[in-house]
Amino acid sequence: MNGPPAEPFEVIDVERLRTGHGVKWGSLVSHTIGAWVADMDFGVPPAVREGILRVTEREDFGYPYWPGEDPVVEAFEERMATRHGWRPEPGRARVFTDLLQILQVMVEYATEPGDGVAIHVPAYPPFLASIARAGRRIVPLPMTRGETGWGFESDGLTGRLREQRCRMLVVVNPQNPTGRVFTPAELAPLAGAAEELDLVVLADEIHADLVYAPHRHVPFASLGTVADRTVTATSATKAFNIAGLRCAVAHVGHGRVRDALDRAPLDFFGTPSVLSRVATVAAWRRSDAWLAALLRALERNRGLVDKWAADLPWDARYRSPQGTYLGWLDFTGSPIGAAAPAEHLERHARVKLSDGAEFSQHTTVDTARFARLNFATSTANLTEILDRVTTALA
Amino acid sequence: MNGPPAEPFEVIDVERLRTGHGVKWGSLVSHTIGAWVADMDFGVPPAVREGILRVTEREDFGYPYWPGEDPVVEAFEERMATRHGWRPEPGRARVFTDLLQILQVMVEYATEPGDGVAIHVPAYPPFLASIARAGRRIVPLPMTRGETGWGFESDGLTGRLREQRCRMLVVVNPQNPTGRVFTPAELAPLAGAAEELDLVVLADEIHADLVYAPHRHVPFASLGTVADRTVTATSATKAFNIAGLRCAVAHVGHGRVRDALDRAPLDFFGTPSVLSRVATVAAWRRSDAWLAALLRALERNRGLVDKWAADLPWDARYRSPQGTYLGWLDFTGSPIGAAAPAEHLERHARVKLSDGAEFSQHTTVDTARFARLNFATSTANLTEILDRVTTALA
Ligand SMILES: Cc1ncc(COP(=O)(O)O)c(C=O)c1O
Ligand SMILES: Cc1ncc(COP(=O)(O)O)c(C=O)c1O
Repeated sequence: MNGPPAEPFEVIDVERLRTGHGVKWGSLVSHTIGAWVADMDFGVPPAVREGILRVTEREDFGYPYWPGEDPVVEAFEERMATRHGWRPEPGRARVFTDLLQILQVMVEYATEPGDGVAIHVPAYPPFLASIARAGRRIVPLPMTRGETGWGFESDGLTGRLREQRCRMLVVVNPQNPTGRVFTPAELAPLAGAAEELDLVVLADEIHADLVYAPHRHVPFASLGTVADRTVTATSATKAFNIAGLRCAVAHVGHGRVRDALDRAPLDFFGTPSVLSRVATVAAWRRSDAWLAALLRALERNRGLVDKWAADLPWDARYRSPQGTYLGWLDFTGSPIGAAAPAEHLERHARVKLSDGAEFSQHTTVDTARFARLNFATSTANLTEILDRVTTALA
Repeated sequence: MNGPPAEPFEVIDVERLRTGHGVKWGSLVSHTIGAWVADMDFGVPPAVREGILRVTEREDFGYPYWPGEDPVVEAFEERMATRHGWRPEPGRARVFTDLLQILQVMVEYATEPGDGVAIHVPAYPPFLASIARAGRRIVPLPMTRGETGWGFESDGLTGRLREQRCRMLVVVNPQNPTGRVFTPAELAPLAGAAEELDLVVLADEIHADLVYAPHRHVPFASLGTVADRTVTATSATKAFNIAGLRCAVAHVGHGRVRDALDRAPLDFFGTPSVLSRVATVAAWRRSDAWLAALLRALERNRGLVDKWAADLPWDARYRSPQGTYLGWLDFTGSPIGAAAPAEHLERHARVKLSDGAEFSQHTTVDTARFARLNFATSTANLTEILDRVTTALA
């Protein structure tokens, strides 16, 4: 067990990263390129690094072998129980390489072309693109800003989903890009509708470990009988900054979907590398001190963004995220209100945000005047980014 | 570029490996466990190790990004052209995690339940198991021993495959377990039958880099127009000893199969880790001196097995492999001729070979009295193994 990293949380040298395989966010302060802006500008937990180094020093890259259950599944089951208070049913979890794969597999195995798939919008853009490309209809559950922050309308939910012939409900919680961490009171009507309409639920909980106190992540499958219709998808890649390692878990609570997957060829969906498994287990089992320090660093940055947003000369109606390292910004009332803000800021401020329009693609929801900020970088970088935006909009 | 490793080729310390994730073969000299016996008791090329260490030191595990073509595909295309004299068509290669996955995907996308799938038998057991589990009929092309070694009957081949309603032909070359490296004269009738019967060909060439002079690997897709119906599958995992890293390439020459795959969800089959990509590129681009030294070490071991087999008190009709690090041994005339030899030797000699019967499972071919030897270990280990077998059979 390694001690917590020194604070302030160490930031990886941006110059070095430019030559790397990953393109991290800090490097985009002065560079503008087209990669998806999703990683943190931080390193990885010491246990992850050491696990990879240990196997590599031994040059031990033969076929993986373990005596009992898959160690990734064991680590997943234990983490859900100890950190999130949900005890997964043994024998239901399967290892995949990533969550986008899990979404696409579940859409194929749980729905038919033409079926409705409900999801909160704005949403992680590749999810919308995947559902549309599969010929399923996206049924948006629009996120709206109320007094207390981002939320969604649950009155009449069941009726709307029935009308739209929904067969699947995707619940991304914590939500990307709004950073909402849904409460049990918000999740209950979703669970109720799923039960009443016999929906398959895909619960994407990839950001579950990135939640700020006093908010608490509640696994959808912990809500009771809805567990038996829920596929819970997660990975260590977001909280521990290892997206390139490609290792994810789906706990398939839904019996019919589980049976369908059991009939698929055994290796159809591929297998994560032995190093990815070692890293995932090290992250979930031996990296909580690192995670605690990370959350402190992110919380400081979140505070900087809150303060910056409150001082903007227009009303960005910004809501501080309860989880994730993402900020969802409305530029409607700003001097660039009519333009695509991310594109404008890339050109004029040389700052890369994620284009808001993509987060509602293939739906009637309009988020063209929004942009998403990733604040998982050094305080210095973040300050520079926010200053540049302010200057560009002055 | 690293120089060649010192000879004799360095063998990884078996004691250390016992605690590892891979279970290597040398550890089985004194231990008997149930893992698949497939790796080499050697390390990995320095460039592979260094590539992994470089990324790990940088803690650079973000989403992979590259400006142009996938570097794994580029390295594959260049290696096929420079080492094997076959120039793959650009835009046809796809990255998967492993060859078993590729076989299963191609069976699903290129054939229907009930179709015949032809394959030389004995065959790599998971291939037979996968074809049978998918509800396709295995049409065995039996390997037989002639004057000059293992071969197969090509007279009347087209008629037999037509009669058996074959839709796919799997050509594993170099062949596992016989170690045959097929000549153009042997491949021609296979290509001819494929053309005449409009078959999809899956050419598994995973051992292509492990061929002993004067034999030469001839890519099936280099044989002419048959390229347009061939899926060539390979990886760096066998020759460079990185099976646990899970990264493979399929060059999909068959237009209809390529179209079907293009219609599948984009991330359906998962993605190899960034470290697996780095390792594969390092193996294919910067490890040929290591490979040359490896082949010298394997060739010495092959000579030891040849000599040992010639001196056996029964006629094992052993044929020295032209490629791979595998020996296919017939125990029919031995004192344990009636038993399953691998099981017997595991119990009485504490030596682990692969059970011959599995290599013809789900077919009418009988290989129950065979066993497969993996000779990719130190000379000392190999000598001990061969001595133990001799003693147990005295
Ligand atoms: C909510 C959400 N789900 C899924 C993903 C993608 O996960 P993966 O890289 O495992 O496909 C992301 C990445 O940012 C995400 O934010
Ligand atoms: C001929 C052959 N094909 C495929 C494989 C398996 O490859 P993978 O581990 O990529 O599935 C092996 C492994 O020994 C093999 O010998």
